[in-house]
Formats: sequence, C-alpha cells, structure tokens
Amino acid sequence: MGVFEKKSCFVITGASRGLGRSIAINFAKKARKESVMILLSRDTKALNEVETEIRSCCQDVSVVVCGFDQGDLDERKFQNIFENIFKENKLSIDSFEQAVIVHNAGTLGDNSKYVKDLVNVSELNTHFGVNLTGNILLNSACLNFFTQERFAHRYVINISSLTAIRAFKSFSLYCTVKAARDMFYKVMAEEEPNIRVLNYAPGPCKTDMQIKCRENTSDPEVKQMFESMHNEGNVLECDTSIQKLVQVLETDTFVSGAHIDYYDL
Amino acid sequence: MGVFEKKSCFVITGASRGLGRSIAINFAKKARKESVMILLSRDTKALNEVETEIRSCCQDVSVVVCGFDQGDLDERKFQNIFENIFKENKLSIDSFEQAVIVHNAGTLGDNSKYVKDLVNVSELNTHFGVNLTGNILLNSACLNFFTQERFAHRYVINISSLTAIRAFKSFSLYCTVKAARDMFYKVMAEEEPNIRVLNYAPGPCKTDMQIKCRENTSDPEVKQMFESMHNEGNVLECDTSIQKLVQVLETDTFVSGAHIDYYDL
Repeated sequence: MGVFEKKSCFVITGASRGLGRSIAINFAKKARKESVMILLSRDTKALNEVETEIRSCCQDVSVVVCGFDQGDLDERKFQNIFENIFKENKLSIDSFEQAVIVHNAGTLGDNSKYVKDLVNVSELNTHFGVNLTGNILLNSACLNFFTQERFAHRYVINISSLTAIRAFKSFSLYCTVKAARDMFYKVMAEEEPNIRVLNYAPGPCKTDMQIKCRENTSDPEVKQMFESMHNEGNVLECDTSIQKLVQVLETDTFVSGAHIDYYDL
Repeated sequence: MGVFEKKSCFVITGASRGLGRSIAINFAKKARKESVMILLSRDTKALNEVETEIRSCCQDVSVVVCGFDQGDLDERKFQNIFENIFKENKLSIDSFEQAVIVHNAGTLGDNSKYVKDLVNVSELNTHFGVNLTGNILLNSACLNFFTQERFAHRYVINISSLTAIRAFKSFSLYCTVKAARDMFYKVMAEEEPNIRVLNYAPGPCKTDMQIKCRENTSDPEVKQMFESMHNEGNVLECDTSIQKLVQVLETDTFVSGAHIDYYDL
C-alpha cells in the first residue's frame, strides 16, 4: 500500500512558501481522507494563506498551522511541540497509521562571503543553530512523539540539495549544512530501520532562495552559472520538482538514507 | 620542491596528544631548518611536553606553544591570534616561504546517544561550536594572516575520518561534523586555487578518542566492530598513519579538496 493511501499525519517545516508550500499543497492533494497536515513556519500570515488554499482544494484533510522558529533554540519549545499541537487541535494520536515528516526549513547563509570572510561568531552560530541544532531538536521531538509503537509507518524526508555533494564557491555555509544534514539522516537511517529516510535534492526551483543564490553570490563564475540557468529557463517550478518527490514516495523503492536528486530520476 | 623542503610555518591544532602530537613531531622531523612549529591546544601542560620532545630531536626548528580553546567562541581570541604569536615570539613573517595549517582539533560528541536522544540544546551548540564554528573562525584567522601575498605556498589539511563519508550508528554527531568539514574544505579548495587543501582520513589510530569510540558507543554492532578491530591488532599507531600523510604531502599529487583515506594509499 502506497504512502499516500494511509491515514497520515504530515509534518512540514518551512511550509509558508516556496518548496515547503508546494510540498504542503501537493501532499494534501494526494493524502488519504482524514489525514492531517501540520504546517510549521515562522511566517504565520503566509502559513494561513497556505491553509486556506489547502482547505479550498482538499476538503477531506485537516490542516493545522503553527508559528514555529526552528532557530529559536529554547529546549522547551521543542520538547512538547507535538503533544501541544495534538491537544490544542483535539487530534487523537490513535487515529493515524502513518507519520510523514518533511524537514524543509533552512536558510542559505550569506553567499556574498567566501570562506576567508567568515569571521563573525554570531553569524556562524545563527546559521548552524537554525540549520543543524534546531533541525536535530525538531527531529528528536518528532521521533519521540511519532514513535514506532504509535506509528507503524514512518517517513522522514530531508530536503537536501546538489550542494550537499558538490562544492560551489561562495556557498560554503550552505554546502556545509547540506552535507552535514545528509550525513545526519544517513546515520538515522542506519539506526532506525523502521523509518524510511530520504534525502531529496529538488534541483534548482523558483524560490526566494534561488533569487538570492543568483543575485547575492560574490563569485562571478557561480553567478554566471545561476544566471544562465535562469535565462535558459532551467529553473524548475516548485510543483514540478515536488511532483517527482511524490512519485519517489509512491514508488517507495529508494534505499533508506539515500540522496536522490530530481535529475537522477 | 617538496613541502618539507621549504622554510615553513606550521600551525597544528590539538597538538598536545594523539594524532596532533604525532603530526607535530613527524612534521618537525621532516621540516627544513629554521621552520617554526606553532602548536595549539587547550592542554598547555601536555603541549609543553610535546615542545620538549621536539626540541630534543629537532634542534633546527623552533617551537611555539599556545594555549587555545577552539570552542571558546570569543571573536577577539581568533582575530589576532597569529599577529600576537608572531609578535610575542619575535617571529618575522618575511622569513617563511610557506604556511602549513593542520586542523586536527575536534571532539567526538556523545556516542552513547542515538539520533533520537539528541534533545539537549547546549550539548549540540557545544559540539557544533568547537567542531564547526570554532574551526571556521580559526581557519579564517589563518587565511587572513598567512595571505597569498606573504606566503607563496600554502597547505591546509583537515583531519577527516571515514565517518565523513560513511554512517555509523550512534556516531551521528561525529559523522555530521566530519561530513560538514570535508565539504567546507572542498568549497575552500574551489575558492582558493593557490592553497593546496587536503581532507585526510587517518584510519583508526591508537588515541583516547578511539577508546571512547569503542567503550562508549550505545550500539552493540558498532561496539563489536570497534572491539574486533582492537582485538585483531588493526588499530594503527598514530605515527604509522601520519607517516603516510607525510608521504602524501611529499608526493603532492593529490587533487586539492580531495578526501584521502589511509587505506586508499
């Protein structure tokens, strides 16, 4: 039975825009009735718009939105986040067969800087805080709430990038975090054979981050690469990439912990 | 002309024991006369012993030891570290042809924990602080002091690990940081074509960290693997591995930014 045929609890971070928004909407369209979409983001206003959009097209699923900043490293905010969401929204944990977590939230880091320009402690701490520490804490909160005892089927999808495996000048902060997270989820795949773990690299998509990649990079060669990609129409619609992710999950033959790129498929 | 034939300034972090100590001593033995070994570590007492050892065997090189905690993220401590060392030790920057930086300092992280057990903010912040933020800050300090204008020849060696490319249960913190650092130095290799950058994985060596790997892991399979390696005599002497690193540097044909393992050679 495919991923989207089970009554599921979806958790999607960074769901207010770009890829996260596309994941929320495309997954909701595919989701079995009575599934719930739990959407997290700092931007609650934009999150409410995503909620409205899902409610208008997918009456059979419920939507819960939650203002959440993965970079606000207050342990208590992570600890009981899902207990609280379930309680406040009168959700019953026993009513779901499956949990699908999508770690999409993340930041680019300052790509106007080369490695040698990285001299600011708070900039580095903030970057690793939101992209590593915060992500790991949220993941632990997921694993400890959506336990194997409660959820026979679990998926954890890390939104990865080509930059996890290929170095780009002026992208040291982004590359470093993406490589780190791929490895983190590879270790989790080894530790948790009952969780299906996927590192999905969506390809270059039309997002605010893609604009920053192109406009802010300090490196002329890399700028040229991003501009050519843009000018030649090779930047993907988010939905195009996410529909391929949906296919990967439906086919469900990937090796747990693998890095799979849009262009591999 | 080989790496060790130039009058060099060597900087080695974590030089008080284990691999760092072995790097310091083996490099000093190879170093051209009038080179200087700048040895950093939190443990100044052990560092002084390494200094004594080098002075007794290598009268032609000078040794500077410096108490330094890469995890103490005070920007000012990183900013002028090499200016201060040069001033305090009356070293003249013009007298060196080459700088060789070895980023060896690092911590294992708590390998009694699985991914799902990582719920403590300060533990994660400390781990990423010393192994990523602190390492990046020290590296920037190196690049901004040992500039291309002053040093025609520069090498940066990141002490990597098999765990940078292979996932081991209960080693998520270590694997994540090692993968992150490999990628960081790959980006640097792209950005800095005039620096020779190497990610060297030394293999399992007889260090305090190796004991922790074996004794503290929460995972029975991984424990068994480390114990077999230990019992069958497959844990290397630090010097054995570092002599191979010396060879790699002497041959000097590696692709800048490459990950090279002891067992690849």
